[in-house]
Amino acid sequence: MKMRDIKILIINPNSNQMMTEAIQRTAVAFADGDFIVDTVSTPGAPEFIDYYMDAAKAAPGMLKLFKENEDQYDGFVVACHSDPNLDLLKEISSKPVVGIGEASMKLATMLGHSFSVISTAEHSIPNKQAMIQNYHLEKYNASVRAPKNEHTSLSAEEIFLNTAKSALEEDLAEVIVLGCAGLSGLDKNLSRELEIPVLDSIVSALVIVTGLVKAGLSISKKRRYSGIQN
Amino acid sequence: MKMRDIKILIINPNSNQMMTEAIQRTAVAFADGDFIVDTVSTPGAPEFIDYYMDAAKAAPGMLKLFKENEDQYDGFVVACHSDPNLDLLKEISSKPVVGIGEASMKLATMLGHSFSVISTAEHSIPNKQAMIQNYHLEKYNASVRAPKNEHTSLSAEEIFLNTAKSALEEDLAEVIVLGCAGLSGLDKNLSRELEIPVLDSIVSALVIVTGLVKAGLSISKKRRYSGIQN
Amino acid sequence: MKMRDIKILIINPNSNQMMTEAIQRTAVAFADGDFIVDTVSTPGAPEFIDYYMDAAKAAPGMLKLFKENEDQYDGFVVACHSDPNLDLLKEISSKPVVGIGEASMKLATMLGHSFSVISTAEHSIPNKQAMIQNYHLEKYNASVRAPKNEHTSLSAEEIFLNTAKSALEEDLAEVIVLGCAGLSGLDKNLSRELEIPVLDSIVSALVIVTGLVKAGLSISKKRRYSGIQN
Amino acid sequence: MKMRDIKILIINPNSNQMMTEAIQRTAVAFADGDFIVDTVSTPGAPEFIDYYMDAAKAAPGMLKLFKENEDQYDGFVVACHSDPNLDLLKEISSKPVVGIGEASMKLATMLGHSFSVISTAEHSIPNKQAMIQNYHLEKYNASVRAPKNEHTSLSAEEIFLNTAKSALEEDLAEVIVLGCAGLSGLDKNLSRELEIPVLDSIVSALVIVTGLVKAGLSISKKRRYSGIQN
Amino acid sequence: MKMRDIKILIINPNSNQMMTEAIQRTAVAFADGDFIVDTVSTPGAPEFIDYYMDAAKAAPGMLKLFKENEDQYDGFVVACHSDPNLDLLKEISSKPVVGIGEASMKLATMLGHSFSVISTAEHSIPNKQAMIQNYHLEKYNASVRAPKNEHTSLSAEEIFLNTAKSALEEDLAEVIVLGCAGLSGLDKNLSRELEIPVLDSIVSALVIVTGLVKAGLSISKKRRYSGIQN
Amino acid sequence: MKMRDIKILIINPNSNQMMTEAIQRTAVAFADGDFIVDTVSTPGAPEFIDYYMDAAKAAPGMLKLFKENEDQYDGFVVACHSDPNLDLLKEISSKPVVGIGEASMKLATMLGHSFSVISTAEHSIPNKQAMIQNYHLEKYNASVRAPKNEHTSLSAEEIFLNTAKSALEEDLAEVIVLGCAGLSGLDKNLSRELEIPVLDSIVSALVIVTGLVKAGLSISKKRRYSGIQN
Repeated sequence: MKMRDIKILIINPNSNQMMTEAIQRTAVAFADGDFIVDTVSTPGAPEFIDYYMDAAKAAPGMLKLFKENEDQYDGFVVACHSDPNLDLLKEISSKPVVGIGEASMKLATMLGHSFSVISTAEHSIPNKQAMIQNYHLEKYNASVRAPKNEHTSLSAEEIFLNTAKSALEEDLAEVIVLGCAGLSGLDKNLSRELEIPVLDSIVSALVIVTGLVKAGLSISKKRRYSGIQN
Repeated sequence: MKMRDIKILIINPNSNQMMTEAIQRTAVAFADGDFIVDTVSTPGAPEFIDYYMDAAKAAPGMLKLFKENEDQYDGFVVACHSDPNLDLLKEISSKPVVGIGEASMKLATMLGHSFSVISTAEHSIPNKQAMIQNYHLEKYNASVRAPKNEHTSLSAEEIFLNTAKSALEEDLAEVIVLGCAGLSGLDKNLSRELEIPVLDSIVSALVIVTGLVKAGLSISKKRRYSGIQN
Repeated sequence: MKMRDIKILIINPNSNQMMTEAIQRTAVAFADGDFIVDTVSTPGAPEFIDYYMDAAKAAPGMLKLFKENEDQYDGFVVACHSDPNLDLLKEISSKPVVGIGEASMKLATMLGHSFSVISTAEHSIPNKQAMIQNYHLEKYNASVRAPKNEHTSLSAEEIFLNTAKSALEEDLAEVIVLGCAGLSGLDKNLSRELEIPVLDSIVSALVIVTGLVKAGLSISKKRRYSGIQN
Repeated sequence: MKMRDIKILIINPNSNQMMTEAIQRTAVAFADGDFIVDTVSTPGAPEFIDYYMDAAKAAPGMLKLFKENEDQYDGFVVACHSDPNLDLLKEISSKPVVGIGEASMKLATMLGHSFSVISTAEHSIPNKQAMIQNYHLEKYNASVRAPKNEHTSLSAEEIFLNTAKSALEEDLAEVIVLGCAGLSGLDKNLSRELEIPVLDSIVSALVIVTGLVKAGLSISKKRRYSGIQN
Repeated sequence: MKMRDIKILIINPNSNQMMTEAIQRTAVAFADGDFIVDTVSTPGAPEFIDYYMDAAKAAPGMLKLFKENEDQYDGFVVACHSDPNLDLLKEISSKPVVGIGEASMKLATMLGHSFSVISTAEHSIPNKQAMIQNYHLEKYNASVRAPKNEHTSLSAEEIFLNTAKSALEEDLAEVIVLGCAGLSGLDKNLSRELEIPVLDSIVSALVIVTGLVKAGLSISKKRRYSGIQN
Repeated sequence: MKMRDIKILIINPNSNQMMTEAIQRTAVAFADGDFIVDTVSTPGAPEFIDYYMDAAKAAPGMLKLFKENEDQYDGFVVACHSDPNLDLLKEISSKPVVGIGEASMKLATMLGHSFSVISTAEHSIPNKQAMIQNYHLEKYNASVRAPKNEHTSLSAEEIFLNTAKSALEEDLAEVIVLGCAGLSGLDKNLSRELEIPVLDSIVSALVIVTGLVKAGLSISKKRRYSGIQN
C-alpha cells in the first residue's frame, strides 16, 4: 500500500480538546504530508485518564468513535500512555489498533539496553509498572519515574528534564519514554540535552500503525482477540 | 523527514546472490516507491548463516559494507533472522540498525497473545530459543518449530504451511513469524490459508527502520552501544 | 468482628438470573448460616461474560450495584472467573473486593505444587493465561484446559471430569481450579473422582473476603488503587 | 462446616512460652469466639527460630505435636514467619496446614500492587528473599526491610514504624507484612499511622486455615506432598 | 593447595550401605588417586531419601557425621540428588559443602543449551521442579522425566536409556543429568548410546568441591549462611 | 584421567602480553604443579576487549589459536570476563571450552545467596547485565558495580575494595566476582578485608575445565553447538 493512501485515526481517550489539538500537531508534524492523520476527543470521557474509573468512563465514547470511523480509516491509535481499553478495541477491530504505551515502550527496546518511563504523577508509578509487566517488558525497564510533588520555580520542561536525568544517571537508562500523551513535543529538546533517544509515544504509535497498514498486517482474530463474531 | 527521501540499505549477511535478489524483491514490493531500498550481499561471507562460525565469518564483510555505505544511507537492516553481528553494528552506528529477527518478533507481540517462529531446520531451534531469551520474549513465544527432516513429496510451501498449522493448533500460536530471510515471500499465502497474521521479517524490519529514520530516532550511544569513540 | 455480623454481596457481572441463583445456592451452602450473603445480577450486562466487550458492557451496571450497596455490605465478590472490572472496583472501594479468579488461583497455590484451570471454551485459554501472568502465577500453573469443541454424548460433568483428568495426568496438576462461575457445584464430585482438591471459585472468594472483613483488612488506598479522592 | 465447630491448632515452632502466649492472645482476639484455637510451644525446639539449624532442631518436636493432635484438630498453623518444616507437615497431613509466612504474603498480594516484609534482623533478609522466590512472589514484593542494628532510644514500635515508612515511601510498598510472629499485635497501630494495610501473619494464617476447613479443602496428596503412604 | 592433599568426605544421607559402597566406587574411580575421598552412610537415616520426612529423619545423623569429621576433611559432599539438608550444612560449615543436585545441574548448564533430569520415580517430578526453581535453573531445564511405573522386561539401564532418549528427542535436551545417586555408574554407557554428555552427580560434585578446596574458596558466612556464631 | 596428565590452554582474547603473563602467573599458582597450563595472547586482537568491535576483531586470532592447539591440549579457557566468542569456540570444539565469565559467576552461586560483579568501567555495566541475563543468573545477581570515573589518590586495590564493600553493604552481596581478567590476583587481599569469598575468574574457569577433562565431559554436539560437521 502507498503511504499517501493511508488514513490513521488517533483516538484521544479523554475529552480535553486542547490535548487533542496538541496530539494532532505532533502527528501532523511527524506525518509531514506522507500519510493522513486525524485526532478526535472522546465524547463523554473525563478531562484526563488517570484512574481505572476514567478508563471505564471513556469506554463507551471510544467504542462509538471506533465504530463510526471503522470504515473510513485504515488504522487506529489509542493516545493515552496507559493504553485504556486497548484490548477492547483490538478485540472488535479487523484493522490495526495500536496503543501509544505499548508502541513506545516496545520501540524503545530496539534502541538501547534499557529504558525509563517518565510519568506525570508519582501515584501512577505502580500502574505503569503493572502495564510493563503485562507487556513482559520488566527486563528492559530501568525505572518508572515521576517528578516529586513539590513546589518549584522550574518550568515543566526543566522538571521533566531533571527526572529523566536521574533515570539516565542513577537507573542507568539508555532510552527515555515520555509516559503521557500530554508530554508530546518535549522529546526533541530532552533528547538534545540528554544525548540519548527520547521517544514521543504518539510518534512511536504512528510508526507502528502506518507500518502495519502498509504491510497489510492486522490483529490476529484467533482466540484472545477473536471477538463475538468468531 | 519525508518518506520519499529515506534511503535504506539491507545487508544480507551471506554471500548468496539469489537470496539477496529475493530479499530485494520483497523490499521493493513493500516500499512500493515510498522510500529507496537497496540490498547487498556480504563479500567473503558463507552461502548461508547457520552457525556461530558463519556469523563470525560474515563479520568483516558486514563491517566493510556498513562503513562504505554509512554516509549514503539513513538506516540499515541486517537481513538474517538470527541477527548475526547486530550488536556490533548497533555499537558502531550513529544511524538506526535493525535486525529482521528482533523486528519481526517484537512486531508480532503487538498483533496477538503469542507468536510461533517457523524455522528452516530443527538443529537451529535452541539457537532461536536463545535469541528469544536474549530479547526477553519468552512469555510471548508459543513455540519455535521447524519441519521434520524427512523425505516428502510436498512442496516447500506446503511443508511450512503444515509446520505453521501445528503451531497454530497445538501450541495455540495466534501469530506466525517466518524465521528465515529465505522464507520471504511466503507470508501472504500462509496468512490466507491460516487466517492469522504471518510476518515476513524483511518487511517487519523495514517498518521499524523507516519509522525510526522518519522520527529522527537512533541507537542510544550511552553505555551498551557507546562504541570506542565515547 | 463476629462472623455472624458479616454481610457479603456477590456481584454476578452478567445478567443471567439462573446463574445468579446457582451462585447464591453455592454461597448459602458454604456460609451455612455463619455469615450473610446475597447475590445480584448486573443490570444491563450481557448474558455471559466471555469477551473484553462483555466486560466493558458490564461495567456501568457493576458500578451502580456497588455504589447502591456499598454501605449495607462489609465485603464484595466479583463472581466471574475472568475478574472483569476488578481493578475498577478495588480502586473505588474502601471495603474488601475479591475476584473469584484471583482468590481461587491464589488459594490453590497453598494446596499443592501446581494447579490447572478448567475453562469452558478453548478460545478463552489465552485470556486465562494473560490473567495468570497478570497475577504472576505462571510458575504455579500447570495448564489451562478446556473441553474440545466436539459432539459427544457425555454429560457436562463427565466432559469436565475428563478435561481435569488430562490436566492431572498429562500436565501433572495437583490441584484443579474450576475456571467459571457456571461450573460452581461440580467441585465435590470432581474432587471425589480425581482424589485431589478441586476449588470452587465462589467458595474460594468467600473464604478470602470473609477473612479480610473479620480481620479488618481492606484494599490499600496508596497509589495503584488510590482512586480520585486521594 | 459450621465455624463454631472448627478447631485449629497453632504450632509455635520455638519453645518460647511467652511468644506462644502472645500468639494465642492474637489468635483468640481474632477468633472472637467464632472458632476454637489453641497454641502450643514446640518441645525441644530453640527459643527462637532464626537459622536453618533452629528449624532442624524444631522438626522432631513439631512432628510429635502434629501426630499427637492430628485427630483432635481440623487445621494446623505453623507460626513462625520463615515457615520452618512447612513442606514436611504438608506432606504428612491429610488436613490443612498453613504457614504464617506463606499465608500473610499471598493474602497481601490481593490488597495492593506490592508488599514489603518487615523483618527483625538484617541477617535474615536473604533468607526471606529466598522464601519469597520459593513462593514465586518476587513481582509482588517491593522489599524486605529490617531495622538497622544500632543503638537508639526509640521504642520497638517506633523502630518498626520507621522501617515500614521507608518501605512505603522509598520502595513504594502499598501493603506491609509483619515478618515475624513476635511482631504480632503491632498491626493495628502501624496501619493507623501508615494508612495502609498491615498484615499480622498469625491472623492471615487463621483466615486461610479456617476457610479451608470450612470449605472442606486440604493439601493435595498427589505427588509433591503425597507422603510415604501413597 | 596440592590435589593429593585434599580430603573429601561424601555423606550419603541414607543408611543404605550398598548405595554408600556404590557411591564410593564411583568416587574412587573418578579420583583415580589424585585426591582422597571417603563415603559414609548416615546413622539413623532411612534406607532411601524420597520424601520431606526422609530428609528430616536424616538431619540429626548428617549433623553428627559432619561435626565428627569437620576437622579431618577439607570439603564435603551431600550425596542425594534432592540435596537434603544442604542449606543446613552450608550454614554450619566453614569449609566447602556441595550438593550433588546443585553441582550436577549447574555444571550441565555449561555444556549445552538445556538439560533434562532423569529421575527414578514419577511422584518426585514436582519436587525436582521445585528444586530447579530454587536454584533458578528453569530456563536451562528442558524437562524432568522418570520412567513410567509399569511392568517391563527391560533392564534398568534400558529403561533409563529410553527415558533419556525421550528427553533428547521430544524435549530437545542437549545434556542429561542423572537425578539420583543410585544411578551412579550409568553415565558412560548412556552417553555412548545417546552421543551427548550424561552427568553423574557424584562426579559433578567432586569436580566442584575439590576445585573449591584447591582454590581456597568456601561458603560465604555473611547473612544467609552466617550461622549462629556470627 | 589423572590430573597430572591434563593440559589446559588459556586463550587471552587480547594481544596484551603483560596481561597474558599475569594470567599465566595466576594459573600456575593455582595449578601448583597438579596440571599443565599455558596462556597465549591472541594475534591480531586489540590490546583490551571492551566493545563488541573488540570481540569481533579477536575472533580470527582466537580461531587460529584454537585450531593450532586443538590436538595438544585437553581443555580450553577463554580468559576475558565478557566471554567473547565463547559460543563460537563451544560450537567448533569437541573438547571442553570454558569462559571465565560464565565459570566464575556460576561457581559464585554455590557459595552464597547472591553475588556482585566488580567491573572496571561504568560503561560496561549494561553489557555485564546482558551477559548475566543470557546465563539466566539474574536472581543470583545482587549488582554489577564499577568504580566511579573520578580522580583519586587511592590505589587500584583500594578503589576495587571500596567498590566491593558497597556491593556487600548496600546491595547485600554475599560473594564477589572479579569481573575482569585484569583484576586477577586481587582476590586473596579483597577476601581477607571483606571476609567473604572473592572469586578470581581465571581460577574459577580452571576449576571447571580441569574437572570436566578429568570427568571425560565435553560440550554437547547436539543442536546448539553442533557445528557444521553434524
